[in-house]
Amino acid sequence: MSDIALPAGFRAAGMWAGIKKPGRGSDLALLVADEPVPTAAMFTRNALVGAHVTVCREQLAKSRGLIRAVIVNAGCANCATGQRGIEDAHETARLVAERLGCSTGQVLPISTGAIGAHLPMDKIRGGIPALVDALDARGADAFARGIMTTDTVRKLHSATFATQSGEARVTGAAKGAGMIHPNMATMLGFLATDAVLPREAGELLRDVVDRSFHRVTVDGDTSPNDTVVLMATGRFRSSDEELCEGALIDVGTRLARAIARDGEGATRLVTVEVRGAASDTEALRCARTIATSPLVKTAIAGRDPNWGRILSAAGRSEVAIDVAHARVWVGEQFVYEDGKPHPEREPAASKHLQNDEEVVIGVDLAIGDAGLDVWTCDFTADYVRINADYRT
Amino acid sequence: MSDIALPAGFRAAGMWAGIKKPGRGSDLALLVADEPVPTAAMFTRNALVGAHVTVCREQLAKSRGLIRAVIVNAGCANCATGQRGIEDAHETARLVAERLGCSTGQVLPISTGAIGAHLPMDKIRGGIPALVDALDARGADAFARGIMTTDTVRKLHSATFATQSGEARVTGAAKGAGMIHPNMATMLGFLATDAVLPREAGELLRDVVDRSFHRVTVDGDTSPNDTVVLMATGRFRSSDEELCEGALIDVGTRLARAIARDGEGATRLVTVEVRGAASDTEALRCARTIATSPLVKTAIAGRDPNWGRILSAAGRSEVAIDVAHARVWVGEQFVYEDGKPHPEREPAASKHLQNDEEVVIGVDLAIGDAGLDVWTCDFTADYVRINADYRT
Repeated sequence: MSDIALPAGFRAAGMWAGIKKPGRGSDLALLVADEPVPTAAMFTRNALVGAHVTVCREQLAKSRGLIRAVIVNAGCANCATGQRGIEDAHETARLVAERLGCSTGQVLPISTGAIGAHLPMDKIRGGIPALVDALDARGADAFARGIMTTDTVRKLHSATFATQSGEARVTGAAKGAGMIHPNMATMLGFLATDAVLPREAGELLRDVVDRSFHRVTVDGDTSPNDTVVLMATGRFRSSDEELCEGALIDVGTRLARAIARDGEGATRLVTVEVRGAASDTEALRCARTIATSPLVKTAIAGRDPNWGRILSAAGRSEVAIDVAHARVWVGEQFVYEDGKPHPEREPAASKHLQNDEEVVIGVDLAIGDAGLDVWTCDFTADYVRINADYRT
Repeated sequence: MSDIALPAGFRAAGMWAGIKKPGRGSDLALLVADEPVPTAAMFTRNALVGAHVTVCREQLAKSRGLIRAVIVNAGCANCATGQRGIEDAHETARLVAERLGCSTGQVLPISTGAIGAHLPMDKIRGGIPALVDALDARGADAFARGIMTTDTVRKLHSATFATQSGEARVTGAAKGAGMIHPNMATMLGFLATDAVLPREAGELLRDVVDRSFHRVTVDGDTSPNDTVVLMATGRFRSSDEELCEGALIDVGTRLARAIARDGEGATRLVTVEVRGAASDTEALRCARTIATSPLVKTAIAGRDPNWGRILSAAGRSEVAIDVAHARVWVGEQFVYEDGKPHPEREPAASKHLQNDEEVVIGVDLAIGDAGLDVWTCDFTADYVRINADYRT
């Protein structure tokens, strides 16, 4: 049981159903609203998609965006599994729907794990009755643990805001991450709220994701199963529309940062700040180029305030930059400024990189007023070891 | 002295001038034509450029593409060095021009090494007289060694073709590589021939580079000093225009493959084959996405025929792909075919990955008839170690 509450009108549960080997943690999780509620989802843009992506899109169309439950299994991505994979996802949804007494189209089945294996349907059939029985308003923690694969910590965050009719809540859980946990074939995120959504769910979710999950390294590195789901029971209506969106962004951002911090082999969270860009689009492109550069990330692993790699990554990101007036910082030290390096500031910058939790690097492109942050992690030899040995 | 000859009308030399620490190999190299000859060059597209890029562009304009000599220093990139960097590059060219008796505008000064330090002009002033005295028609090997930084082998290749007036030759030397040796801030390539170029030098060079150097991993990962130079003395004229271009592509390709094979921490050359693409542009984008995927490259380091990562990289490369009919191969084994994995073929595929020299992976997108190869290397924990510790 968790200290972190679910929003009103939700129950959740998680269990070990035997999909993963014993001792590897739970592998089946369920989030249920008391009745079908407005729901939006975003999926991977990869041309290779897990079976659940196809099935969820159908269910959302069939149920006109009113969803009752999300069932998630970890340990098997059900991806590159052909027609049988589609049928297995359908059956999973149907089994949950029967126990809950709703229609199959109101259940979203979602998978994460290794690509190319079929869902062990006997385990899922065996697990679902107990999982439904375990549903609890205090089940957020169990749910967040049930979706983990190589994650070393469960990722669960919550925020509240006042409305005329009471305190509304947003609770979110996530696992994995595009570039960081990509062998898991999945970044999954779930956002649940008891507030009335201030605008159309799909459009709102896109804006929230653009400012949270999409700012963890990665871009192009969408995996076949990437999925984010937003569900809203609508108990509380706020007159201030920005409060709900702000809480969603707040929870999404905390989950996104938790994902980066828990990157494979990572020793620290890295915030990449881009300022002085011509536009938000250019700021994002530049920040992502820096945040995905193996050279920048290995330098941070080596506690090396290597401004040349940061500036060079910015330079190749195809955004407007005035190199003579650009600045590069590491922590609070401007290690490149006025068109030249400042080696006398590097010892202090290197000291900043010793921080175990979070480090900050940044660049001012000296062009305009746009800026934003993205989050990533350092890149260690452990990452290579984990990914070279993953299947063998 | 080298077994590999220079084309007629060229002499070359290399020496240690003290730019690198003693024992790190030579660091100053010179390639000279007997008279100014048609020359083309291509430079990095990075917004951050080394001083030599600016100066070489001026020299080529000033001399209308007729160049007498190329002087290269290793161990210092002369990048992010402001106006003094420009002046140092000019002085380097002038010192060579004085000894050769040509105009300063006919000498291209090129630098490679660490970013942010000024050229040690005393060493360069001291070295140039001896370097000019050492010029020799048999100096190709000395030149190729003089441009090395972290390269573990010198990269030098030659090809010949028959013309009416005698045997024409293309000789090329290269060092480093965008993504592979990027902390060196440079991939440098030099192509010299005694043939008459069959068409305008700049246009020909672009086509040759598109089919050779641009197919080593990398795209966006152009570093601030990337440079390729083509010089032609024009002694031999072939009636078959394709012979000269073919020889240039042949030498460029062998150099590009040598660069990939010598990647930091790499244990093997990886050829990525893409077939069945809608167009060459899509084939190249797909091949580069696979060839730069840390997950694919760490899998190869682990001898893991991980078709899921290859297919997923192809899927996110934003090219047309028919996943149900696509195929993935490792060596001669189709590990994904007919819309499903073939685990029974993985042991043979894994055995192929044990090859120490070169391994082949590929994907058929099942859309069209276009296809091409790119070259990369595997990605080991040594790469991270080398780049985490580079400056510290």
